[in-house]
Amino acid sequence: MDAPVSPLAPARFPDLPPLAGVRLASMAAGLKKTGAADLMLAELAPGTAVAGVLTRSRCPSAPVEWCRRALAGGRGRALVVNSGNANAFTGTAGDTTVEQTVAATAALFDCAPEEVYVASTGVIGVPVSPGHIGGRLPELGRRLAADGWPGAAEAIRTTDTFAKGASATARIGDATVTINGFAKGSGMIAPDMATMLAFAFTDARLPADVLRPLLKAGADRSFHCITVDGDTSTSDTLLLAATGQADHPAVDDHRDRRLADFRRALDAVLIDLAQQVVRDGEGAQKFVEIAVRGAVSNPSARRIGLSIANSPLVKTAIAGEDANWGRIVMAVGKAGEPADRDRLGIAIGGVPITEHGQIVPGYDERPVARHMRGRDIAIAVDIGLGRGRATVWTCDLTHGYISINADYRS
Amino acid sequence: MDAPVSPLAPARFPDLPPLAGVRLASMAAGLKKTGAADLMLAELAPGTAVAGVLTRSRCPSAPVEWCRRALAGGRGRALVVNSGNANAFTGTAGDTTVEQTVAATAALFDCAPEEVYVASTGVIGVPVSPGHIGGRLPELGRRLAADGWPGAAEAIRTTDTFAKGASATARIGDATVTINGFAKGSGMIAPDMATMLAFAFTDARLPADVLRPLLKAGADRSFHCITVDGDTSTSDTLLLAATGQADHPAVDDHRDRRLADFRRALDAVLIDLAQQVVRDGEGAQKFVEIAVRGAVSNPSARRIGLSIANSPLVKTAIAGEDANWGRIVMAVGKAGEPADRDRLGIAIGGVPITEHGQIVPGYDERPVARHMRGRDIAIAVDIGLGRGRATVWTCDLTHGYISINADYRS
Repeated sequence: MDAPVSPLAPARFPDLPPLAGVRLASMAAGLKKTGAADLMLAELAPGTAVAGVLTRSRCPSAPVEWCRRALAGGRGRALVVNSGNANAFTGTAGDTTVEQTVAATAALFDCAPEEVYVASTGVIGVPVSPGHIGGRLPELGRRLAADGWPGAAEAIRTTDTFAKGASATARIGDATVTINGFAKGSGMIAPDMATMLAFAFTDARLPADVLRPLLKAGADRSFHCITVDGDTSTSDTLLLAATGQADHPAVDDHRDRRLADFRRALDAVLIDLAQQVVRDGEGAQKFVEIAVRGAVSNPSARRIGLSIANSPLVKTAIAGEDANWGRIVMAVGKAGEPADRDRLGIAIGGVPITEHGQIVPGYDERPVARHMRGRDIAIAVDIGLGRGRATVWTCDLTHGYISINADYRS
Repeated sequence: MDAPVSPLAPARFPDLPPLAGVRLASMAAGLKKTGAADLMLAELAPGTAVAGVLTRSRCPSAPVEWCRRALAGGRGRALVVNSGNANAFTGTAGDTTVEQTVAATAALFDCAPEEVYVASTGVIGVPVSPGHIGGRLPELGRRLAADGWPGAAEAIRTTDTFAKGASATARIGDATVTINGFAKGSGMIAPDMATMLAFAFTDARLPADVLRPLLKAGADRSFHCITVDGDTSTSDTLLLAATGQADHPAVDDHRDRRLADFRRALDAVLIDLAQQVVRDGEGAQKFVEIAVRGAVSNPSARRIGLSIANSPLVKTAIAGEDANWGRIVMAVGKAGEPADRDRLGIAIGGVPITEHGQIVPGYDERPVARHMRGRDIAIAVDIGLGRGRATVWTCDLTHGYISINADYRS
């Protein structure tokens, strides 16, 4: 089933400049029945530091379990990602496949197994035949190139209707560093074909101890703030690799003020990728931003925002272009976070609808109805209790989502 | 929009026998634009004890806040329920409407205000004009009758495609007591038109201190085990009234063995009503039972069951008649409860699909595919860790759900 490109997609894949210390290769290894590219390799310069954020699923895939182990060391020489097969729920056969892939990659780069990261996405429950991926690594090694970014982004696609990339630069001291990233995901997040994978790379010289809190904070403002259907994959993986090739002073504390611009740029890349995942949401016709303020804390604001963003009733109302603020009240109420009916304020498209728990006197629905007919929907909620803020992103829930997910295997 | 009766509906409304100490009346009070019945009154004999379970929403409706106060006393003389208007998110006007309704009812029966319970369901954010409900009470009082059950069940419907009732008898000592109940709900649970309300009545002679734990345990096995879309209304209300007209020995401990049969009958009525709500799920084409065992505790089993039942990807797969067990693995993993990928067993329609984290050798999909084409789908999950069990019920997620919820206001 070839879905048309999402109406919310960016015009084209962005330019990802060469990044010192990273070379990439991709190929069609026969894991996808379509014959499309389905395997990529990234070589990372010796001394590269790596941090990661992995799925919270209690039933993670074999590659996720391997990454958890490798991330403890915080060093990386290579990343191998395949699409077409998630190598999830494959028992000991799955562990064997990971071991073989890791061993073949470690041999190629003469590095420790723990310096190799792996990720897989695609069908689950079907073992990858032994050596299938490992056997392709020598060929991939010969193809490594500094301009392999678009090919790598293509090779990790599954049900994505477009490849997702982002890039930014930042100043650290007198040096300019680059951050490149690519991602895949279109349901948030199905184990069969729509796991969320995202990989970011920088030439900055930062140790894993600094990368970890930066990546965690960035994930909290990006990938942890998006939802398509509230489902969580067994394979979700976000990695950040820093090759250390840039020439700037050593920074060994993530709170160092010299990292302010890097933090901003990293967040920008992660948010851009996360929003592209939402823009490719299965069946999505509208991109929805939900800004929550006045909660008792930032995490509380995020949970309220996600309660709204995950509500099937809110999402179907948006699909129907209906400014149904009653469903937003319902979703705030069910979030389980502190809220007070009589302080709640809701605005859509910048137009206040309720204040202090009642509809605004003389509320005119017409400008809001106009806003609801657009592609980009802005919902603002003021809880009225504190200073907590968060912004989350989602898409509408449409007949397209049902068609894709009820019909795709048949 | 008049939806056709759900294909999962029972053949007809059951016989609810007269119940000593309860008389009912209903009428069309003009709250529904259609002119259908939208207001009901139940008179409860003096000395009736009442227990309740109310929505956990942090933004409850004015009637819910009133019931919370009245339930502290545990006594009841009357119940007034309207449909057509939820009296939710109506600020102080909503409180005033409740006060007027309660005062008019207390005057009718010469009782304390705290002996009057109220519930409302329908559109939210629109105040009910003062006195609209209270003014109808004298007329309702004249219509009270012992056989008013079907009319009462009709009067609380909103988007329900059929009226929902259930009845059972039980032995307490040498006496036979009756339990009658009726309910409404079809989305689980929207504040606009599809709040879940359920009321059960018995002639048993049990104090509120005994009713409360019985009702809570019963709700945990029934209404807390169903979901249509995971959404929670601002108005959800479940009440149990015991008129004390039956002639059996006093029982003042809910653990008393003489209540075993009453507990069974109460659970049967509540489960029957809860399942009818699911069978009327918006757009539902299939009724789904999910039995979880092997969890570390019963509450853990219920949370895992609801994680499966609430997953849009599982529900769309069922709509597509696809035995997509990978999505069940995903939903177990995201529940946040203890689980072990390598112990997980899944069966559909009684056919084992996975055991110990891998697909069963020689798994034949054909009998499972046949089962998926039926109206009633049975999913069994064995977590393999402990002795916790729970059964939850849901329906599939179909194009009908999207149509009803995306289009109904336009």
